[in-house]
Amino acid sequence: MASLGPVTPQQMHFAEPLPLKSGAVLPAYQLHYETYGRLNADKSNAVLVCHALNASHHVAGVDAAGQRGWWDNLVGPGKPLDTERFFVIGINNPGSCFGSTGPMHENPATGRAWGADFPVVTVEDWVDAQARLVQGLGIPRLAAVLGGSLGGMQALDWALRHPKKLRHCIAVATAPNLSAQNIAFNEVARRAIVTDPDFHGGHFYAHGVVPRRGLRVARMIGHITYLAEDAMDTKFGRELKAAALSYSTQDIEFQIESYLRHQGDKFSEYFDANTYLLITRALDYFDPASAHGGDLARAFAHDPATRELQFLLVSFTTDWRFAPARSREIVKALVDNRIGVSYAEIDAPHGHDAFLLDDARYHGVLRAAFERIAAENAA
Amino acid sequence: MASLGPVTPQQMHFAEPLPLKSGAVLPAYQLHYETYGRLNADKSNAVLVCHALNASHHVAGVDAAGQRGWWDNLVGPGKPLDTERFFVIGINNPGSCFGSTGPMHENPATGRAWGADFPVVTVEDWVDAQARLVQGLGIPRLAAVLGGSLGGMQALDWALRHPKKLRHCIAVATAPNLSAQNIAFNEVARRAIVTDPDFHGGHFYAHGVVPRRGLRVARMIGHITYLAEDAMDTKFGRELKAAALSYSTQDIEFQIESYLRHQGDKFSEYFDANTYLLITRALDYFDPASAHGGDLARAFAHDPATRELQFLLVSFTTDWRFAPARSREIVKALVDNRIGVSYAEIDAPHGHDAFLLDDARYHGVLRAAFERIAAENAA
Repeated sequence: MASLGPVTPQQMHFAEPLPLKSGAVLPAYQLHYETYGRLNADKSNAVLVCHALNASHHVAGVDAAGQRGWWDNLVGPGKPLDTERFFVIGINNPGSCFGSTGPMHENPATGRAWGADFPVVTVEDWVDAQARLVQGLGIPRLAAVLGGSLGGMQALDWALRHPKKLRHCIAVATAPNLSAQNIAFNEVARRAIVTDPDFHGGHFYAHGVVPRRGLRVARMIGHITYLAEDAMDTKFGRELKAAALSYSTQDIEFQIESYLRHQGDKFSEYFDANTYLLITRALDYFDPASAHGGDLARAFAHDPATRELQFLLVSFTTDWRFAPARSREIVKALVDNRIGVSYAEIDAPHGHDAFLLDDARYHGVLRAAFERIAAENAA
Repeated sequence: MASLGPVTPQQMHFAEPLPLKSGAVLPAYQLHYETYGRLNADKSNAVLVCHALNASHHVAGVDAAGQRGWWDNLVGPGKPLDTERFFVIGINNPGSCFGSTGPMHENPATGRAWGADFPVVTVEDWVDAQARLVQGLGIPRLAAVLGGSLGGMQALDWALRHPKKLRHCIAVATAPNLSAQNIAFNEVARRAIVTDPDFHGGHFYAHGVVPRRGLRVARMIGHITYLAEDAMDTKFGRELKAAALSYSTQDIEFQIESYLRHQGDKFSEYFDANTYLLITRALDYFDPASAHGGDLARAFAHDPATRELQFLLVSFTTDWRFAPARSREIVKALVDNRIGVSYAEIDAPHGHDAFLLDDARYHGVLRAAFERIAAENAA
């Protein structure tokens, strides 16, 4: 299938401050975004794609650095989310490190980089920022909001708090909140970063250093939770790096160690430490049921317009980070409200990472969903 | 039930170097051990208890510091491993940090602490060191070797390489080797320690510091893997530390964070960083099937004396570190060899930690096993 080819990010500036869930305010800010395909005459074919932890607005096509978008296997001409039919928007969330206003940018109050003083942002704040950008593009109602993992939480929040601004909510490999274990892994990763002497209380930019040690450990921990245990055994097992053991506590003995260290090294080269803290906290905080006595069904019942939406939930059997049971909690809350929902539990070996991979059944489910949405548009 | 009361560790010195699996040699060394109960006249009632990652020779009773032994709920007068009937031995393994020769002791070749130069020790090396101590106590054959987790691996190794020196092998919550995921968690923990600037290449003793940051992160990671996800949700869930969220990336928001940080802090106060590296490596390396084409059944067939032993395997349903499936691999290899084996899969909520906890069904299984062993002795 053809790819989109070269794509160029755009910026939108917002002079009006963004009120945040914490009570703080994000002053004037900018968002980086990309769009693919063409907005139709009645502006009914726009699909917003929300990114997860370490991704960006660069969803599809090839950017100036030659990098393919993180969901390029899904989004493009003739692909499941077909850019011949849909106008697709990728937005980098505030607090991230790929162009939108974030901790490495200047805090207007001090003239220095925000660093650890960047206001804590939540899924709700991101969705509000996205809604402003969508409004800025002149789109009254999105055909769909689509996201995986943390992106799926954003899709759910659109449905809960801006239900009149979308028709379909598609949430893949996500959860209605983090479990204690999920929070625990995030917390260890944060401690690794925060206790790295190069973190300098989050103001490492001024010191010309990066807390790479902490970022590496954080990414290694995260990466383990993205992969299924069986898939790790299939891919790496106990395979050695060299022909024989070297009997060393610090050298690499096993291929899995080599792989993980490489992932950690790569990540520490491009990802911002303050962003990592912010984004894992946004994950921790997301819990739409909490305002409704912990009852997710009541959360979906709160705004009658939520009932008009169509939901699609997708989970993967070997995902132990956001297991299928977590998606089923969402499905049950929707069914309890008699809200239209489809649910696909994909038997895939790749754990949480499956939502980013090219799996025929998974992509088939999304292709069919977008074909139905396109048919609605044509009707 | 009565406890053993005050117990005093003993030391045994070994002038003869210990040849290690790596090809290196541990020169003259000493082992700390404790014993409980009385060795009978024909020396047939001795049970060796092997310790796991962060435990020691102090298995039962109360030591000089007022600390109760790590398996005091299991070992003592009238307890499942009844010290009125059995002579129980706890040994601290070489390389550990509770008295036996380890990285914080003097390297005779340099006159300085061993630090990172302490030779890499394996489960096999530990078992060989234990066998010398048992011989030093004048015990020709142990009634049983018992261990959980890494201790279970030692019990299995006794059965595989010293089968004439025991009658029963009791291995709880263990595995025939580590999975790629198990190794991955160990590797992240090691990287956290080794990249802590206070590690000083393992020679931190000379600098008067301790790599506490790394030890804390290592312990937090380990701790997550010891607990069952559901039990974490039951115990902590998303419970907040304070009445309301503070919206901070660095402060504690959730109780699970508070708990984990506390575990990390405690651990970093008493555990040695070099020992952590050595012990996780011993876990990584253990793989008795590897010398037999990866066929565990062949490993158990190697020494005909292994066939004469009686095995008991115990696993816990919610243990995801060493899941029941891993114990069943061992049971299958034994059954394939028609070796006597009992297996109990205990429905317990506490994950890997269950092997240390007081569970009636679990303790009932061990009590019955030791009653049979005592009856054999009496016959």
